[in-house]
Amino acid sequence: MTAPLHEERRGTTGARLPDTQQGMRRRNLSRVMHSVAAHGPLSRATVASQIGLTRAAVSTLVEELIRAGLLDELGPERPGRVGRPGSALAVSGRGPVGIGAEVGVDHLAVCAVDLRGEIRARTVRQVSNHHRAPELVLQELSAMVERLSSEARQAGLSPAGLAVAVPGLVTRDSLTVVRAPNLGWRDVDLGPLLPSLTPLTVDNEANFGALAELWLGAGTPEDFLHVSAEIGIGAALVVDGRLLRGAQGFAGELGHVPVHPEGPSCPCGGRGCLEQYAGEAAVLRAAGLDAGEGRVSLLAGRAAEGDAEVRRALRGAGTALGIALTGAVNLLDPRAVVLGGALSRLAPWLMPSLEEELAGRTAGRACGVTVSALGPDGPLLGAAHSVVRSVLDDPMAAVAGTGGG
Amino acid sequence: MTAPLHEERRGTTGARLPDTQQGMRRRNLSRVMHSVAAHGPLSRATVASQIGLTRAAVSTLVEELIRAGLLDELGPERPGRVGRPGSALAVSGRGPVGIGAEVGVDHLAVCAVDLRGEIRARTVRQVSNHHRAPELVLQELSAMVERLSSEARQAGLSPAGLAVAVPGLVTRDSLTVVRAPNLGWRDVDLGPLLPSLTPLTVDNEANFGALAELWLGAGTPEDFLHVSAEIGIGAALVVDGRLLRGAQGFAGELGHVPVHPEGPSCPCGGRGCLEQYAGEAAVLRAAGLDAGEGRVSLLAGRAAEGDAEVRRALRGAGTALGIALTGAVNLLDPRAVVLGGALSRLAPWLMPSLEEELAGRTAGRACGVTVSALGPDGPLLGAAHSVVRSVLDDPMAAVAGTGGG
Repeated sequence: MTAPLHEERRGTTGARLPDTQQGMRRRNLSRVMHSVAAHGPLSRATVASQIGLTRAAVSTLVEELIRAGLLDELGPERPGRVGRPGSALAVSGRGPVGIGAEVGVDHLAVCAVDLRGEIRARTVRQVSNHHRAPELVLQELSAMVERLSSEARQAGLSPAGLAVAVPGLVTRDSLTVVRAPNLGWRDVDLGPLLPSLTPLTVDNEANFGALAELWLGAGTPEDFLHVSAEIGIGAALVVDGRLLRGAQGFAGELGHVPVHPEGPSCPCGGRGCLEQYAGEAAVLRAAGLDAGEGRVSLLAGRAAEGDAEVRRALRGAGTALGIALTGAVNLLDPRAVVLGGALSRLAPWLMPSLEEELAGRTAGRACGVTVSALGPDGPLLGAAHSVVRSVLDDPMAAVAGTGGG
Repeated sequence: MTAPLHEERRGTTGARLPDTQQGMRRRNLSRVMHSVAAHGPLSRATVASQIGLTRAAVSTLVEELIRAGLLDELGPERPGRVGRPGSALAVSGRGPVGIGAEVGVDHLAVCAVDLRGEIRARTVRQVSNHHRAPELVLQELSAMVERLSSEARQAGLSPAGLAVAVPGLVTRDSLTVVRAPNLGWRDVDLGPLLPSLTPLTVDNEANFGALAELWLGAGTPEDFLHVSAEIGIGAALVVDGRLLRGAQGFAGELGHVPVHPEGPSCPCGGRGCLEQYAGEAAVLRAAGLDAGEGRVSLLAGRAAEGDAEVRRALRGAGTALGIALTGAVNLLDPRAVVLGGALSRLAPWLMPSLEEELAGRTAGRACGVTVSALGPDGPLLGAAHSVVRSVLDDPMAAVAGTGGG
């Protein structure tokens, strides 16, 4: 049988463009870069067989990428490795770096990642951004980005774009934060408040966290639901290796799935939403603890010490998560659910009741629950890597564009 | 800002293939066919500007498609229409037809649709397939397909593939029905039981219904959740004009989203699933009516006559649908929810409580609820059109392949 091609092809940026020689060359340069980045060092012959082009075609593409400083030739012989002759190619550690930035409720972070995926610089500053004016927060963040970019340039690297993770809803294909309750922001266009690096993207931290899991996680499937939490509960769905953003960019609001439809009112306007049972405030209340900073560490610490109240509160949160995830698994049929962010730290006490609830309600579904190894670093790394991948996607444009940032 | 290209490009069948001259030509032939099919009759110049190729390139492609009998030239002048000179092109009404078939709980249907989207033949047979052996059902269906195909060939048409809609879960990219509770089928491979037309696909009726809505619905957006019901409740999500199938092919099981987590047990293993409140059996029970055939017509008739019990039962079903859809809208952020199948006939009495519940719980989300105009014809038309679109996607392969079916 044949899968209907049209479905795969619609909605594809590449395929909507006309197929021209120039477009074909651009896509093939990208294929060479992705192949070497994912599996390098590689010989030209191996690249050719991986991407299905002739060795002659690959050699021409490789020469162009070497001249642009994007690929390095490691020399004709690599000792200690058996294989066909021919010099090995590697992605260059000089040249473009992706800049990732994160606005957290109680921190700001910036990092630079090169085309090899190595973190070349990183700055984190603890600061409470709760109800702090966006102008002040972004002034501080921009200064951190400028300093890191300038250091990167001095080290011979070229900042090739900036991606910013925020804990809120971001309108699709825009730089506008529609709602970030934990920052107290509403309808803020971050564009004018950020350094003019190109490309410039702003996205929800749950989305970048999920992309980090997809790109960097060990053995992560291409279809999964990534659930994360800082103060609210967010989720992001990856389908066939692509993020599902939703029509407005607001997909993944697991925190507002009804768990008990007649339950307590939620600031979203609904009743009995998951956040009313498994959000940070609800868990602290159930455990008899006050709200405040560093509460996730407190909960994890108390639970590890055997505090019965805290363990009971986390067990209840796990049950509520299991009910909400039952709906998500029935609707989305992901290969796996991955718990990230704060949930990854609380997983030991959430998982038993969560898995019991989910397994009992979704018999016959092959959906496992795993814990992210990236933890709280996910969103920042996802942001930086999204810039790196945009360079791999159109390498010559990135080279032409650098220096102007 | 730039959308990250890699996301769009991954998971794309076309883009995973190497970019070769042959592949480029194949895709451009498809673009010409899609352009004329969607907007024809069109001049070569208009096609060229629509798909972004030169007029010379388009002329070469058009000649090939005319020679293959897939496009018709309507002549140099079209009276009554102002426009640039040049003969108009139309998709041929001879040549390939897509065969769609449907296994319903109480009927079998087959139809043939040509490349212009016109239904050229159609057969429907009322027969109860409830707990009837798959071999017998498919023997009868296959005979209907063979007869229709043979009539099509006598009329100069070429059956270019068969797609079969079934009321059950179908493993992704397979011909295997894993579970069809209303037919009583489990793990049935339909491949050996169907005529050997190529391509041959089997899919859930909710999926084909949603595709019909996407392709044939007036003003349907490219991001929507299609909810349909026959005896169970199914849904299908279309994202950026593509069907979301799920890792195993089981996405869209809205009927098993928990509505009241401590509610009645469901055969799926869960408790308080939507089907326990809004499925046909639950609504009949709430209205004090017996189960049996033609119950949707009975409910619609009684509700129209003002039967208070029936109206109350449908109001309750609408509330439950609203709660389950709140979860779906929060997770998926569709542009619209479309009620199809049996739900479209009951919509007048479901909608008020459904919309009240959904709007109250999802304030600030721009997601409307509409009723499908295709009604119960959706799955059959979606199946036939899926074959037609596979011809438009790779027109020369379809021409090379016909005659062998």
